[in-house]
Amino acid sequence: MIKTDILIIGAGPTGLFTVFEAGLLKLKCHLIDALPQPGGQCSEIYPKKPIYDIPGFPEILAGDLTRNLLEQGKQFEPGFTLGERAETIEKQDDGSFIVTTNKGTKHHAPVVAIAGGLGSFEPRKPAIDGLADYEDNGVEYIIKDPEFYRDKKVVISGGGDSALDWSIFLTDVASEVTLIHRRNEFRGALDSVEKVRELTQEGKINLVTPAEVKELHGDGKIEAVTYEMEGESVRIETDHFVPLFGLSPKLGPIGNWGLEIEKNAIKVDNTLNYQTNIPGIFAIGDVNTYPEKLKLILCGFHEATLMCQAAYRIINPGKKYVLKYTTVSGIDGFDGSRKEAPKAVVQAIN
Amino acid sequence: MIKTDILIIGAGPTGLFTVFEAGLLKLKCHLIDALPQPGGQCSEIYPKKPIYDIPGFPEILAGDLTRNLLEQGKQFEPGFTLGERAETIEKQDDGSFIVTTNKGTKHHAPVVAIAGGLGSFEPRKPAIDGLADYEDNGVEYIIKDPEFYRDKKVVISGGGDSALDWSIFLTDVASEVTLIHRRNEFRGALDSVEKVRELTQEGKINLVTPAEVKELHGDGKIEAVTYEMEGESVRIETDHFVPLFGLSPKLGPIGNWGLEIEKNAIKVDNTLNYQTNIPGIFAIGDVNTYPEKLKLILCGFHEATLMCQAAYRIINPGKKYVLKYTTVSGIDGFDGSRKEAPKAVVQAIN
Ligand SMILES: Cc1cc2nc3c(=O)[nH]c(=O)nc-3n(C[C@H](O)[C@H](O)[C@H](O)COP(=O)(O)OP(=O)(O)OC[C@H]3O[C@@H](n4cnc5c(N)ncnc54)[C@H](O)[C@@H]3O)c2cc1C
Ligand SMILES: Cc1cc2nc3c(=O)[nH]c(=O)nc-3n(C[C@H](O)[C@H](O)[C@H](O)COP(=O)(O)OP(=O)(O)OC[C@H]3O[C@@H](n4cnc5c(N)ncnc54)[C@H](O)[C@@H]3O)c2cc1C
Repeated sequence: MIKTDILIIGAGPTGLFTVFEAGLLKLKCHLIDALPQPGGQCSEIYPKKPIYDIPGFPEILAGDLTRNLLEQGKQFEPGFTLGERAETIEKQDDGSFIVTTNKGTKHHAPVVAIAGGLGSFEPRKPAIDGLADYEDNGVEYIIKDPEFYRDKKVVISGGGDSALDWSIFLTDVASEVTLIHRRNEFRGALDSVEKVRELTQEGKINLVTPAEVKELHGDGKIEAVTYEMEGESVRIETDHFVPLFGLSPKLGPIGNWGLEIEKNAIKVDNTLNYQTNIPGIFAIGDVNTYPEKLKLILCGFHEATLMCQAAYRIINPGKKYVLKYTTVSGIDGFDGSRKEAPKAVVQAIN
Repeated sequence: MIKTDILIIGAGPTGLFTVFEAGLLKLKCHLIDALPQPGGQCSEIYPKKPIYDIPGFPEILAGDLTRNLLEQGKQFEPGFTLGERAETIEKQDDGSFIVTTNKGTKHHAPVVAIAGGLGSFEPRKPAIDGLADYEDNGVEYIIKDPEFYRDKKVVISGGGDSALDWSIFLTDVASEVTLIHRRNEFRGALDSVEKVRELTQEGKINLVTPAEVKELHGDGKIEAVTYEMEGESVRIETDHFVPLFGLSPKLGPIGNWGLEIEKNAIKVDNTLNYQTNIPGIFAIGDVNTYPEKLKLILCGFHEATLMCQAAYRIINPGKKYVLKYTTVSGIDGFDGSRKEAPKAVVQAIN
């Protein structure tokens, strides 16, 4: 059982900044995310694109924002359960919650902050007979650890950035990389497209277009796939089949937690601290809704900050917290680090 | 008469970010500030100190945050009335407002956003007979333009960063710089203290401590001051006497605009868009109050953003605005500039 002060569901920008604000209040956080990496939409959908409306950054790449937020919170030592979806929640007699993931990992906390964005990112799956039977037996929809493919034969399918970028990356790891796409045209960053072209010419990527994987073969685990190209069927041997057709967010199990839902989002009380209809459960960032809500990153930051004050009161009943400026008080990390502004000196000059 | 869409009172971080958010909605802003420079508390009180809780910045100097916010908004060409205090407001028959400063500058806008922080920064004045008579006739409390002191004799008084930093700066401009402080000890950044020591030894700053200016002399304008040092009175000639004893914020005239005030702040409706009790006048950032309000920079950013949506509806009645992501839509400056994310290419590879 993982124990923490604030259990955060969703490691997007809102969840990540919560770690920092909670840390200022000496509260520890643990984050659950269905994705294998933190960053939410910023890292899954547009890591290499600039955002222009983060206050103080005339321009910042979404991936850099994620890195900065991780850096900003790291002295507060957040825990992570990645690649798992929060599935069920049970309220305990003492008012605390146990949240269990689809893989059975249990988390226990007095406060739950749902920062689930548009929902848990779930892969779009191609319609191939028997696909589900091979899941985790040679079929993966997300590449969590490239080392997993070391010296293996891999067939990737898809026509966007993920398919391009992972094909490039795996040429250095896998023994054989085949990229299959149903069109001749790929849609991605110019340099990725050019790199794949180069690697194809060097024979390091086996590019097959326009073609579609139609059948999977293997006894318990994948041994080969059959694709169709211009009316012909071709069978190739492979250890892995990785369809990268994008991930789409689904509110998913959280929709059944007894929370008030409106427009596919969780209703919260924006007059105070973004609490849901269940005391102790808050919803912040894209996942919540209230009058005049804007689904913007900077709004999630504000919501997270106000929410932490309420969490503090639940966890420290009766204790009063007086807001301190970071500039004035500095920051004491849970890892023993200390950041502080250089002090003014008081000195005679003559 | 200066005309604009949103008249912002206060050019602190909240006011500055409003320029950007309003610009996204194609609304123009003009800012009034009592200080001669933008940045509010960040530039007046702690420009060289690090802030740790601006989301996405593990650390940023308050002065750099101000610079970044100015840069972020500059393509939306904000206007500035600096060094003037907003004094009176008159509602027009069409619901718009005319705001007049203490120097008589008039501004006309359909929406007023008060981002006045803790109030208009007003200088702390020493108790010297007849001081007020010399204001703007050789006595200044804020240095707006150092060139004003070119080849002049200047007496600065004070023991903090402003007194130290301006004494240093003016050695290159004024014909004579005298720094008078009632204690031997100064309180400031280490390098400023050391620099003043050095310039004193080189004879470029005439340092007088512990001493206090007691009398002012001159016919209509300052010609000399008398200071007292260890029981003795000394008279020195000077063209300017600049007491730099710090600025302290005062809600000031805004307190008499008919706005609901609570705890020295303006009550707003935080369930919607931070509007005050007077429709068309909003209050954002440190200057407002509502249940669970936190006086933090990041909260001002959120409040400004939601407020701009309401301003849009007032200025464009009946028109519906659909939120656009800056990453997706890019940014069209009022100066004709365009920022946009690099587009994905769609290309065949073989
Ligand atoms: C192309 C694009 C451009 C954008 N441009 C901008 C812009 O310019 N400015 C701006 O402010 N915003 C922009 N946005 C929106 C911005 O990305 C979102 O507002 C932001 O990501 C919301 O952050 P969040 O942390 O609330 O949620 P998300 O980033 O959506 O993160 C939520 C996380 O929660 C996880 N999760 C959800 N449910 C579960 C569960 N049950 N178990 C485990 N994990 C779960 C998800 O997997 C996800 O990783 C853009 C979005 C897109 C798609
Ligand atoms: C030492 C110190 C450290 C701090 N550290 C932090 C920190 O670490 N993190 C954080 O989030 N916050 C911190 N703060 C608070 C932060 O600076 C404020 O929250 C922020 O400046 C508020 O911004 P604002 O734009 O709302 O108002 P302000 O910055 O106060 O700006 C308001 C401006 O309005 C002007 N004004 C007011 N009335 C009038 C008028 N009638 N006419 C003309 N001009 C007017 C004032 O002159 C002023 O320039 C700190 C503050 C101090 C003093």
